[in-house]
Amino acid sequence: MPQSKPIEYADASPEVRAVYDDIKATRQVDDVNNFWKYIAQHPPTLARTWDSLKEVMAPGALDPLVKELLYVAVSVTNNCGYCVASHTAAARRAGMTDEMFGELQAIVGMANETNRLAVGYRVPIDPAFE
Amino acid sequence: MPQSKPIEYADASPEVRAVYDDIKATRQVDDVNNFWKYIAQHPPTLARTWDSLKEVMAPGALDPLVKELLYVAVSVTNNCGYCVASHTAAARRAGMTDEMFGELQAIVGMANETNRLAVGYRVPIDPAFE
Amino acid sequence: MPQSKPIEYADASPEVRAVYDDIKATRQVDDVNNFWKYIAQHPPTLARTWDSLKEVMAPGALDPLVKELLYVAVSVTNNCGYCVASHTAAARRAGMTDEMFGELQAIVGMANETNRLAVGYRVPIDPAFE
Amino acid sequence: MPQSKPIEYADASPEVRAVYDDIKATRQVDDVNNFWKYIAQHPPTLARTWDSLKEVMAPGALDPLVKELLYVAVSVTNNCGYCVASHTAAARRAGMTDEMFGELQAIVGMANETNRLAVGYRVPIDPAFE
Amino acid sequence: MPQSKPIEYADASPEVRAVYDDIKATRQVDDVNNFWKYIAQHPPTLARTWDSLKEVMAPGALDPLVKELLYVAVSVTNNCGYCVASHTAAARRAGMTDEMFGELQAIVGMANETNRLAVGYRVPIDPAFE
Amino acid sequence: MPQSKPIEYADASPEVRAVYDDIKATRQVDDVNNFWKYIAQHPPTLARTWDSLKEVMAPGALDPLVKELLYVAVSVTNNCGYCVASHTAAARRAGMTDEMFGELQAIVGMANETNRLAVGYRVPIDPAFE
Repeated sequence: MPQSKPIEYADASPEVRAVYDDIKATRQVDDVNNFWKYIAQHPPTLARTWDSLKEVMAPGALDPLVKELLYVAVSVTNNCGYCVASHTAAARRAGMTDEMFGELQAIVGMANETNRLAVGYRVPIDPAFE
Repeated sequence: MPQSKPIEYADASPEVRAVYDDIKATRQVDDVNNFWKYIAQHPPTLARTWDSLKEVMAPGALDPLVKELLYVAVSVTNNCGYCVASHTAAARRAGMTDEMFGELQAIVGMANETNRLAVGYRVPIDPAFE
Repeated sequence: MPQSKPIEYADASPEVRAVYDDIKATRQVDDVNNFWKYIAQHPPTLARTWDSLKEVMAPGALDPLVKELLYVAVSVTNNCGYCVASHTAAARRAGMTDEMFGELQAIVGMANETNRLAVGYRVPIDPAFE
Repeated sequence: MPQSKPIEYADASPEVRAVYDDIKATRQVDDVNNFWKYIAQHPPTLARTWDSLKEVMAPGALDPLVKELLYVAVSVTNNCGYCVASHTAAARRAGMTDEMFGELQAIVGMANETNRLAVGYRVPIDPAFE
Repeated sequence: MPQSKPIEYADASPEVRAVYDDIKATRQVDDVNNFWKYIAQHPPTLARTWDSLKEVMAPGALDPLVKELLYVAVSVTNNCGYCVASHTAAARRAGMTDEMFGELQAIVGMANETNRLAVGYRVPIDPAFE
Repeated sequence: MPQSKPIEYADASPEVRAVYDDIKATRQVDDVNNFWKYIAQHPPTLARTWDSLKEVMAPGALDPLVKELLYVAVSVTNNCGYCVASHTAAARRAGMTDEMFGELQAIVGMANETNRLAVGYRVPIDPAFE
């Protein structure tokens, strides 16, 4: 009962290759990372996820570095090892310094602490926040 | 068996009042919000939490708006209603526009989706990310 | 499309009443709380859950107060409003003082903070802990 | 300070062996998987968990394949590596095809995304859903 | 500092109305539910989310009722009140009976229990599951 | 793009060494565990986290063993592998027996199960718990 397998470019269908080509062109990389090779087992999920991610992470009102920092914050909170590793690397490529990384972790830690204090003390929402 | 009660300034001990005064001065507000009034039931937690939060959220390598956006991202992922309400308000005060808010939610949503795909497909970490 | 409804004692089947009677006798209360009335919609779940809970929460190597504190810690971490309210009340009945409640919340908060730091920094397990 | 150890059949008490025997007979397997060998360190937990699981996963209004798909959905959302591996294998044995696996992951991903959008936008429950 | 507001059809831009019209036609309902009205504040998120959800929830290898049951399982595990309410209603419309609902909750509960036992006992993955 | 690196005592700044020295003296150990060596990359987070943890875990209304059990309960619920390993070891050092460990896991499992049943059945809080 083997686990799921990655789809390498050489073995990919034209539909999957088209997505891989777009990822490689958009990110200017030589190969796609494992995440894409594994979800390529279901080509509609590969195509839809890439389309969404490309749209969501494109420059907008928030700059690309801030977007990657947010991605790391969610991935740490969800305890997703792959996601922490890949998005920390992406954030470094986007310009995250060691000092920014340290502050990011400090905020994520504190937010998780105060979130629980708010729940544990059953704090009602202030009228000013409604 | 009543739930926990907020400690109002008028009823607070000098130790608690000192923290409230520092929060009010630092944030330039007339009163502290419910979070602080509820955790004030345990004065050491009030003092320690405020000291930590003041240090973590102070301007540094990341600017205050980015820090508040990160706080919202964690609070949404943890599904903490109070925290989402209070930190969304704080982010707006720090300059978050409607467009930024929309992009923030879009990223938090996508990160939660792709986190689960990485787990469900059991994606191994690429050597390049180690 | 109404939400699920509680099953009151007067309307309950003999099978459900037998569980309610055992809860009331075990806990020495006049009525069961809402949790049981809602899950009574599926009698096998009601019976199985009560049997398990009665076994798990019975005095053992850990005393009943410690067991209730652990229940609150999990419920806060899961952000389950009903569970925080009901088990905080149960912990108070079992002897939790205000000071214990404050320390409990402080630990739950710190554990949630340091859990995320361990994940965010990708800390490998020390050989001594294996 | 070693981590917990599995209890192999040869070293098990009669009480633990009886549970192992029932698991092997019910599932028609030659040996129980690690989950059971580890929780066997606390025999009451082993017996209670197996009794509950056998009852819950038995054929009923939902067929066994659907039950395994639900188990995978929860395990992915909780990011439990062991559980994802073991229940994905169980779902495949129960008839899950590659296409079903792909759709399952797609739904789990989207549900996690929209769950966060509902929280982040603080969407109130429609009266029709109450 | 008001919370986010729903966008009603009468106040919606043509871009947003087009999505609302497609939701209403696809689901054969007179109005869209609050989820869509709130995320409509960011039209690209509205359009992208609806496109993804329509694709993912369309009949495929898994039938629509199974897909809704999976959605409920994730929403319960994430403790998303809005999502539990809306997808429980959707599952009932798709044919979920009271008995199915009871079994669904029982499985979600047990999966959450055994997920934690696997983590707490640090169970290593069996070679057969790799 | 390497992952974060531990800071060994020999390479540490005086500021970091002072924290390490205090951890070693407080815990009467020869070296600090990996958690501290990794977060030492951001010295303010190291100092603040240690100060908080020392205060929170000091003897108080709850005894040290109970505090460690609570830490394990949260770490299991958050599925933090490092944290489960390190705090299970700490709990054993503080006196946790095999029987206590078994009861702890049983409670954490049951609490996670009943938390989900409360959410899935949308159980309203009893007036007595407010």
